Amino acid sequence: MSLTVSRPNINNKFRITPKALDIPVRLLLGPGPSNSNPDVVAAMNRQPIGHLDPAYLDLMDEVQAMMRYVWQTENPMTLPISGTGSAAMEATLANAVEPGDVVLVGINGYFGNRLVDMAGRYRADVRSISKPWGEVFSLEELRAAMEEHRPAILALVHAETSTGARQPLEGVGDLCKEYDCLLLIDTVTSMGAVPIFLDEWGVDMAYSCSQKGLSCPPGSSPFTMSERALQKMDKRQTKVANWYLDISLLRNYWGKGRTYHHTAPVNMTYAIREALRLVIEEGLENSWDRHQKTAEQLWDGLAEMGLGCHVPKEYRLPTLTTVKVPDGVDAKAVTSKMLADHNIEIGNGLGELGGKVWRIGLMGYNSQPENVDRVLAAMAKVMAEI
Amino acid sequence: MSLTVSRPNINNKFRITPKALDIPVRLLLGPGPSNSNPDVVAAMNRQPIGHLDPAYLDLMDEVQAMMRYVWQTENPMTLPISGTGSAAMEATLANAVEPGDVVLVGINGYFGNRLVDMAGRYRADVRSISKPWGEVFSLEELRAAMEEHRPAILALVHAETSTGARQPLEGVGDLCKEYDCLLLIDTVTSMGAVPIFLDEWGVDMAYSCSQKGLSCPPGSSPFTMSERALQKMDKRQTKVANWYLDISLLRNYWGKGRTYHHTAPVNMTYAIREALRLVIEEGLENSWDRHQKTAEQLWDGLAEMGLGCHVPKEYRLPTLTTVKVPDGVDAKAVTSKMLADHNIEIGNGLGELGGKVWRIGLMGYNSQPENVDRVLAAMAKVMAEI
Repeated sequence: MSLTVSRPNINNKFRITPKALDIPVRLLLGPGPSNSNPDVVAAMNRQPIGHLDPAYLDLMDEVQAMMRYVWQTENPMTLPISGTGSAAMEATLANAVEPGDVVLVGINGYFGNRLVDMAGRYRADVRSISKPWGEVFSLEELRAAMEEHRPAILALVHAETSTGARQPLEGVGDLCKEYDCLLLIDTVTSMGAVPIFLDEWGVDMAYSCSQKGLSCPPGSSPFTMSERALQKMDKRQTKVANWYLDISLLRNYWGKGRTYHHTAPVNMTYAIREALRLVIEEGLENSWDRHQKTAEQLWDGLAEMGLGCHVPKEYRLPTLTTVKVPDGVDAKAVTSKMLADHNIEIGNGLGELGGKVWRIGLMGYNSQPENVDRVLAAMAKVMAEI
Repeated sequence: MSLTVSRPNINNKFRITPKALDIPVRLLLGPGPSNSNPDVVAAMNRQPIGHLDPAYLDLMDEVQAMMRYVWQTENPMTLPISGTGSAAMEATLANAVEPGDVVLVGINGYFGNRLVDMAGRYRADVRSISKPWGEVFSLEELRAAMEEHRPAILALVHAETSTGARQPLEGVGDLCKEYDCLLLIDTVTSMGAVPIFLDEWGVDMAYSCSQKGLSCPPGSSPFTMSERALQKMDKRQTKVANWYLDISLLRNYWGKGRTYHHTAPVNMTYAIREALRLVIEEGLENSWDRHQKTAEQLWDGLAEMGLGCHVPKEYRLPTLTTVKVPDGVDAKAVTSKMLADHNIEIGNGLGELGGKVWRIGLMGYNSQPENVDRVLAAMAKVMAEI
């Protein structure tokens, strides 16, 4: 029986005829994605190779080593997750949480709430402490919460993309060790751009993304786990409740065994490898200093325009600035007009800060003085026009 | 207090200095990834735009429509998952399975076993029926198993990448409706290359990948769910036990609400949009016919060399051929030498078929007569040399 004979008629309802790809050129100064370094997107314009090809295995080793450098950790279990930042976020909880574990989450923005949601899906006993969006937790507040909740895992957001606040982490790792607790940190908006010392700070698990400080498209997301965190995973009574993100399987692919788990996003690996190489070429401290300097230029320029920042300077992230929307100004009208008339993307406020702030990102490749000039000039023009 | 003053010393242990990216040019005729169409990888060499940019929202609509065409389904809930094929596989089970649901899996290869593993992690009551690797299930066998197990979900692999067998699906959807069961299908190695009529066949959930029949790098993976499957999801007593893959959230981003869920892998969307556009340009039936014709050329050429196929022609996939390794030949020595001397990747056998077969893929852009000539000539040379 020929296949052709038995075929039903083809349904052409969705046979659209799209035109050639035509992507507008945007300056992405919102909460992310940020623009990529042109060398990074060019790196993807290559044929894939097999995920077990000896040449690919070499790339994997290089990517792992460079992530360790940028995060300042010696954790062997440092690898990119095959998805965007939220997948790496979920990987930390999926692997470390067993049903019933107490997970204490610090909520001072949108991503704290997401950690609560995710941890609950892995059947953690989720507890939380909260601060108004834009504030950070003191070591004393964290100690009091540890004393009350005695968690197995403390989860904090180092760089809250929704608020622009930087959570200081000095001393938190020691506190966690004192309470026999793992420390889990969100570095999505800080990796590569803001000083991070995972080992020095005693961080056990961290995740990030590719499309901010690393100047790479989204789709390959740094993940790391300390020996202490791996020991907890290895004592699990149940399988990790997520196959794709199961580190107990993935470590056999990323480690010496090189056992096939899932097909890697090969061209994204080309991209993040190039992105990490460029951070090393610049030097980590030089990248941090550049981000700080460019941000200060933005803050000074905003002040000259009479615009204030939501977060006190001491805790303000250089990567993401929340700018107070003046009374009577329609925040969304400004962002829409910035995109439509100037091809510049800046972000609206999220959650508690919706309508109250704009979010201006200066991350990775985009952290350059000329971009500060461009965004300030465009904002002045748009605000005069609306 | 300046940040610089309080910084610990930088650990330069992992400050490697990798050379410029230098990827060998391989002809990927294994189980996947396959080579990409050059226009598809070129499409990624662009700056990302925001995942809520109006231009990006248009791309999303186009990708959804084209996936429906290639799969021959009108399911509104058809979208790419932000990961590789295994993530889309897990998305089907994560959303449809509630703890205690009976999930019946047909195991006749490696990926049936993976479905069992994944379903168990979502606390399904997993049952299975098995066939030797390379065989397929008859409608009578499936009916008997449905009668015995009364599953909520029947999961079958349309195109088993580990065996090269094509599972016929005519009549299976009607059987599932008779038993009030959802039909879940793996089309990883068939989408775009082998006739698929999801709606005609009564399939409720399916998943695929980008790097085979669609000639795109891995990292953006087709997923679809019927109205019946969505109804089951909407009646859940518990949240979907996977945040990143939760369709009840993702549908608000892919649907009219356009509510932010996670950052999309933007440049992978450029790539799969171009890949789908090229399938439409060729025409779905023309693509199917090309794959069949190229595969028959391979099978004829293998026969001339005295090499047999593991799967009877009636059920043999055009995309992936399992070739019997002759007695006394070291299968892995041949694949290693094919790669080292000829830059051609073919696959080794997996599981039950380890050492017994080679796996030759002719998928998407690679399904061309000259590639058949190349692989046959290289195999003849290598087998004469070892």
